[in-house]
Amino acid sequence: MKKFVNDPTVVVDEMVEGYVMAHTDVRALEQARVVARKQAPVKGKVGIVTGGGSGHKPAFIGYVGKGMCDAVAVGEIFTSPPANAFYHAFKVADGGEGVACLFGNYAGDVMNVDMAVDMAADDGITVKQVIANDDVPSAPKGKEADRRGVAGEILMWKIGGAKAEKGGTLDEVIVAAQKAINNTRSMGVGLSPCIIPAVGKPNFTLGENEMEVGIGHHGEPGIRKMDIRPADEVAQMMMDIILPDLPFQGGDDVCVLISGLGSTPLMELYILYRKVGKILEGKNISVYRSYVGNFFTSLEMAGVTLTLMKLDSELKELLDEPVDAVHFKQL
Amino acid sequence: MKKFVNDPTVVVDEMVEGYVMAHTDVRALEQARVVARKQAPVKGKVGIVTGGGSGHKPAFIGYVGKGMCDAVAVGEIFTSPPANAFYHAFKVADGGEGVACLFGNYAGDVMNVDMAVDMAADDGITVKQVIANDDVPSAPKGKEADRRGVAGEILMWKIGGAKAEKGGTLDEVIVAAQKAINNTRSMGVGLSPCIIPAVGKPNFTLGENEMEVGIGHHGEPGIRKMDIRPADEVAQMMMDIILPDLPFQGGDDVCVLISGLGSTPLMELYILYRKVGKILEGKNISVYRSYVGNFFTSLEMAGVTLTLMKLDSELKELLDEPVDAVHFKQL
Repeated sequence: MKKFVNDPTVVVDEMVEGYVMAHTDVRALEQARVVARKQAPVKGKVGIVTGGGSGHKPAFIGYVGKGMCDAVAVGEIFTSPPANAFYHAFKVADGGEGVACLFGNYAGDVMNVDMAVDMAADDGITVKQVIANDDVPSAPKGKEADRRGVAGEILMWKIGGAKAEKGGTLDEVIVAAQKAINNTRSMGVGLSPCIIPAVGKPNFTLGENEMEVGIGHHGEPGIRKMDIRPADEVAQMMMDIILPDLPFQGGDDVCVLISGLGSTPLMELYILYRKVGKILEGKNISVYRSYVGNFFTSLEMAGVTLTLMKLDSELKELLDEPVDAVHFKQL
Repeated sequence: MKKFVNDPTVVVDEMVEGYVMAHTDVRALEQARVVARKQAPVKGKVGIVTGGGSGHKPAFIGYVGKGMCDAVAVGEIFTSPPANAFYHAFKVADGGEGVACLFGNYAGDVMNVDMAVDMAADDGITVKQVIANDDVPSAPKGKEADRRGVAGEILMWKIGGAKAEKGGTLDEVIVAAQKAINNTRSMGVGLSPCIIPAVGKPNFTLGENEMEVGIGHHGEPGIRKMDIRPADEVAQMMMDIILPDLPFQGGDDVCVLISGLGSTPLMELYILYRKVGKILEGKNISVYRSYVGNFFTSLEMAGVTLTLMKLDSELKELLDEPVDAVHFKQL
C-alpha cells in the first residue's frame, strides 16, 4: 500500500487536524469529530448540516462555508459518523431557526441521524431531514426510496444552503432541498478499486479490462460488469439510464455535474462531458450550468459519476447564489 | 489501459471541445489550439498568457479567467504547444498594453515562446516573459536557471494576473511575477507512474514499495529512489530540501501550496499538510494563506508537490485579490 499516511488507524483524525490548520475559515469541535464554519452558528439563519464516512473528499468537509454547509459530522473511512457527532453538528449549526440535515441514504447514517435528531429535540433544537437518493442503478424505478445518495448530494447542499443563506425558514429550506434531490439523477462507472488505509488491500476486484456499471461510492456492486468501452459509449450508456428515469425531456433546463471518483484524470471527465453535452443538445435539453471535477470521490478509485438536475426558476436562482466553501467557490 | 477515451490520438482535441462546452466563460480559438477568456482581449489590461503540454489539469486551462490568465496555448500530452499556438494566444490576449507570458522552464516551451514572441513583434505586440524555475531538486543551488517550473507556476499566474487586473503596466506585471517565482520553491515526491493514452503503458516504473524523491511533472527522475516512509517523514524530507534553499527563515510569512499529482487522495495531502504546518510553526514561519488540492497534476500519477512562497506586503495584497477561473476561484 503506497500512501502518505502515518498510523493507518488515525488517518481521519490527522486529516481533520491538517484541514483546520490549512483553512482558517473552518474549525474542529472538541466534543466530537465535527468540522464547522468558524462563525457557526449564524444567528437567524437555518443551519445546514451533513455528514458521512470519510474518503470522499472534498465531500463532506470541503463544502463547509457560506452558501453551503454550517457543520459536518465526520466518520471513519466509508463509515457513518456516530449519533453524537451529528448531535454536536446540529448544536453548533443551530442559530435559533432550526437545522436542516441533508445527507445520503445509507443505513448507518439514517440511524445515527435519527438518534441525533432525538437528542437535539431534548435540547429544544428542531432538526428536519432530507435523505438524498439520486443513484439510479441502486434500486429500480418505483423503489426510489431505496436508492443511495451519491454526487447529487452536492447539488442538494448547494440549493438548501442558498435557500438558508437567503433567509428561508426551516420548512422552506427542506422543501427546496427535497425538490433539488427529487429532480436529480446520478450514476457511476468504476474502473478500479481503492484501498482503505487500515485494511491495506483493494476493497473489490475488477478484471484487467473490466468496468463496473452503476458502482456505488464505496465500491458497492453496480448493475453489471462489462468490458470497458470507448468514452462516448460509456457516456451514452449512463445517459440511457439517467434520462428516462426522471424523465428528462426536450425543453428541460438542467445542471450537469460530472465528478471523478479519485484517480481518473480531469481530461477524461471532459471527454465524457463532450458526449453528454452532445446527447443533451440532440434532445433539445439546455445546459444551464455545469460542474466538472473531483467533487465526490472514493479515495483513489478510478471512475466517474454523472449527475443531472432538472431546473425550474427557483432552482436556477438558488444555483446561481455565491458559495465560499474551501473546495466549492462560486462568485 | 483503463481510461475513458475514444481515439487515443485525439484526446486533447476532445478534451478542449468538452471543456468549452462545459464552461461558457471560456472559448477555443479556431486558428490554433488555444483556450481564452470569452471576453479576451480585455482592453487596457496587460494580457496574461501561459501554455504547456496537456495532462496537468487543472493546469493550464483551468486557470483561464478574471484575475489569472487570459489565454493558454494547449500542447499534446506532456509536449510543448507549437509556436503558432503561443502566437495566437498572445494575439487574443493583447488588449493594447502588451502581454506577459508566464510559463515553465522546459526546453520546448522556451523555444516555442521565443519564436512566438518574434512573430508577435512583427504584429506590433510586445510580449515579455517570466520563466518559472521553482523545482528545487531539478538543479543544484547556483544553477537555479536550470530548474524546472512546477506547481509554483500557479502562484506566479495568481500574482501576475492580479497585478494586471489592478492596472499594472507590462513591466510592473513582469516584475511582480518574477518576484513571485523568485520567492517560490517546490519539490515533488512520486509514488506511481501515469499512462499517456497514445502510449498505453506507464511512463516509468517504481518498485512496489518505492517512492521517487524530487520527481518531475512528467515523471522526470528525481534525486533518489527510496522506500516509502511515513507521511510525517516525507513532509520533513521535503521541508529539509525546500527551506534552506531560499532560505525561508523565522519571521517570514509564507503561502503554502500542496498539490496532488493525480490519484493521491486529498486526505493524504492534508495529513502531509499537518506536518508541514507544524514544522513551519516550530521555525516561527507564519502561514498567511494555504492551498491544498489537485492544482497541477500528471494524469493519474500518485504523489505530491509541496510549494512555499515567501511573501512581502505586495505579494500578500496580490495573493488576496479575487479570481474567477473555472478551476481556481477566490472570493
